Amino acid sequence: MTVLIKNVRLKDEQKDILIEGNIIKKIASRIDRNADIEIDGEGKGAIPSFINGHTHASMTLMRGYADDMVLHEWLEKKIWPFEEKLMEEDVYWGTRLACLEMIKSGTTFFNDMYWHYHGSARAVEDSGIRSAVSAVFIDMFDSKKSEEQIQLNIQLFEETKQYSNRVMFALGPHALYTVSEKSLRWAKQFSDEHSLLIHIHLSETEREVSDCIKRHGKRPVEYLESIGFLGPNIIAAHVIWVNDREIELLKYHDVKVVYCPTSNMKLSAGVFSYQKLKEAGLTIALGTDGCAANNNLDMLEEMKTAALLQKLNDKDPTVLSAQEVFDIATLEGARVFGLNCGEIKEGNLADLLLVDLKHLHLIPNHHLIPNLVYAAHGSCVNTTICDGKIIMQNGKVEGEEEVLEKAQEVVMKLTSL
Amino acid sequence: MTVLIKNVRLKDEQKDILIEGNIIKKIASRIDRNADIEIDGEGKGAIPSFINGHTHASMTLMRGYADDMVLHEWLEKKIWPFEEKLMEEDVYWGTRLACLEMIKSGTTFFNDMYWHYHGSARAVEDSGIRSAVSAVFIDMFDSKKSEEQIQLNIQLFEETKQYSNRVMFALGPHALYTVSEKSLRWAKQFSDEHSLLIHIHLSETEREVSDCIKRHGKRPVEYLESIGFLGPNIIAAHVIWVNDREIELLKYHDVKVVYCPTSNMKLSAGVFSYQKLKEAGLTIALGTDGCAANNNLDMLEEMKTAALLQKLNDKDPTVLSAQEVFDIATLEGARVFGLNCGEIKEGNLADLLLVDLKHLHLIPNHHLIPNLVYAAHGSCVNTTICDGKIIMQNGKVEGEEEVLEKAQEVVMKLTSL
Repeated sequence: MTVLIKNVRLKDEQKDILIEGNIIKKIASRIDRNADIEIDGEGKGAIPSFINGHTHASMTLMRGYADDMVLHEWLEKKIWPFEEKLMEEDVYWGTRLACLEMIKSGTTFFNDMYWHYHGSARAVEDSGIRSAVSAVFIDMFDSKKSEEQIQLNIQLFEETKQYSNRVMFALGPHALYTVSEKSLRWAKQFSDEHSLLIHIHLSETEREVSDCIKRHGKRPVEYLESIGFLGPNIIAAHVIWVNDREIELLKYHDVKVVYCPTSNMKLSAGVFSYQKLKEAGLTIALGTDGCAANNNLDMLEEMKTAALLQKLNDKDPTVLSAQEVFDIATLEGARVFGLNCGEIKEGNLADLLLVDLKHLHLIPNHHLIPNLVYAAHGSCVNTTICDGKIIMQNGKVEGEEEVLEKAQEVVMKLTSL
Repeated sequence: MTVLIKNVRLKDEQKDILIEGNIIKKIASRIDRNADIEIDGEGKGAIPSFINGHTHASMTLMRGYADDMVLHEWLEKKIWPFEEKLMEEDVYWGTRLACLEMIKSGTTFFNDMYWHYHGSARAVEDSGIRSAVSAVFIDMFDSKKSEEQIQLNIQLFEETKQYSNRVMFALGPHALYTVSEKSLRWAKQFSDEHSLLIHIHLSETEREVSDCIKRHGKRPVEYLESIGFLGPNIIAAHVIWVNDREIELLKYHDVKVVYCPTSNMKLSAGVFSYQKLKEAGLTIALGTDGCAANNNLDMLEEMKTAALLQKLNDKDPTVLSAQEVFDIATLEGARVFGLNCGEIKEGNLADLLLVDLKHLHLIPNHHLIPNLVYAAHGSCVNTTICDGKIIMQNGKVEGEEEVLEKAQEVVMKLTSL
């Protein structure tokens, strides 16, 4: 299967881009050859697709269900009771809805953690995008639950082999305050044996830190280091409440971190120290978090919020520039997850977007990247290509009406239970 | 001219809405009568349109032109040199572009301040929306310039009578650091004589406060009070660096204030004390500021940023709820500008929107207002009605292609000069 994109704007030049299989085969001023599919790139700009570093995709079912609440009450009165009713099929349609939103707004990879693993995994498979899918691993320090979760994850790891390589199995120990040391140690060992990523929430709230000090006599990152958990395959979301010593430890072990500005603001969690973590040399991705805490999955909006928050917090409008935040949403994100994409170049995975240069938010076109970061939303994305396949063209995704209908049916059923 | 909207969702009920002339004449479960235009409201929700409290509309020409810079350098090296080249026709097309973006994202009133008054005023007139248009009034403490500006504004006030009542003439003394006391006193007197609004930037930066103390021995609000400037017709944008005494003065004189969260974050200006100003009883509107400092005019995005910033800053996720921020973007905004709109009810101006309830960001529909505030962007707006006229239907605005083309031509011309 070959796709030829003719005469598209790539950085500041008009180019043709040839995709063969799932790889960007050639980029040149002019490519004359037959391809299975030819796309007219006139009036469009080619950019890498986005990498969403932290999500709970199926929580899109809870978009707007409960907002403006204190974390504790929000979880206990709203989120958990809703989640208790969820079945695998509900999670499937919730994740399909999330994938649809991501495709429409140009995201082709997301790092997910949720219940009913196969609901998420099947949705990723059927939607045509990529994901590191993990099952929420919570044992609440109960050794029986720990054993159950371990067995479940061993099984899911095996079962994932039924899916294409767009579905990447990952481990999802939820957080320090919900997972026992035994389980954390197992996760690290199993992930090392099988080259898996581990997705964890880390130092999101001040309370998490003080609770950790009470429980373990150490701050979160120090505790994780002491049990040998840290390493380059750890993807830590949030990472707000870390001190200089902890930042050093994260860097020493090459832990990857995910900045989730919207969620951090909406839940009043705090401000991610972008400059400090960057200067320490950490690899940073950008994430939206789930739709119960955001309430969308639009990485273009997330880039803007990411940049604005740092400028305000550092009292310096020059920090986290448009190009830099675009890079963390694409190239750096790809580095975090070990993906050969995030940049349009020969030999890379064919995960890319065509944006509509005639979209209102991209006019005038003084500079494309600042327009994308500060003015545009996902609606400027015209075409989404993942793994060499066109999964959205001219703003249309195959079967989108069914996804919207089914997701609504699922929500109607759940809220009437 | 009558418009009948059939079977639309209004709050939690299905309603018919009858518009006669520029007024919402009747709202009922069923209205059976002929109308000049009938709109099928099935699958749509009716909401009031947005009031943008602070803009420099024509700066949309500078969208993405210069970002991530320190204020001083940004103004001197980029913004001012660009603005020096502007002619009235350029401002016309820049404002048309801004109006197009506003119509598409559901804004029907904006409070503007810019150069080449008639460029902006004609663009408002031709776009079909409403605006309080003011000419930037800067004299740099030069009495000759002051006199020129006064004469110009007297003339513009007269000339505005040629436009429809959608174009509201306002005075635009730029700020304390650019306008002499003599001019400020004149503005207040003239506005009182002719019942005009005054649009001013106030206490946007810390430096503005310290400079004011140096120059006048008083803080900005105290200084303005001392010269008799404060009053209910003053629309003060930003109002970040005010102390308790100044807040009392603002309240005493019923000064209206405009919160511009995106601009304040992007330029590292500081955080508007929403709770304090609200508790003091001030009337607060929401504004995007101009596209050089935002870089869009999307009030749905602005509502989200407004709420997120307060939650983070107050360390309380319950502050500035979705409903409250929606109200400041509509009803409170209308109060600030003395407009009989901001709420869909009989007798109000027919300024309203139909949003597409099948839009991805409004699914699932647990609650419409939180979905609009936290998930959606302007792209969920299907129909925009202003002054009883349908100025966008099914996402299409008459003549939009021409506006996009002309704005691009203007920018090409300006950047090649």
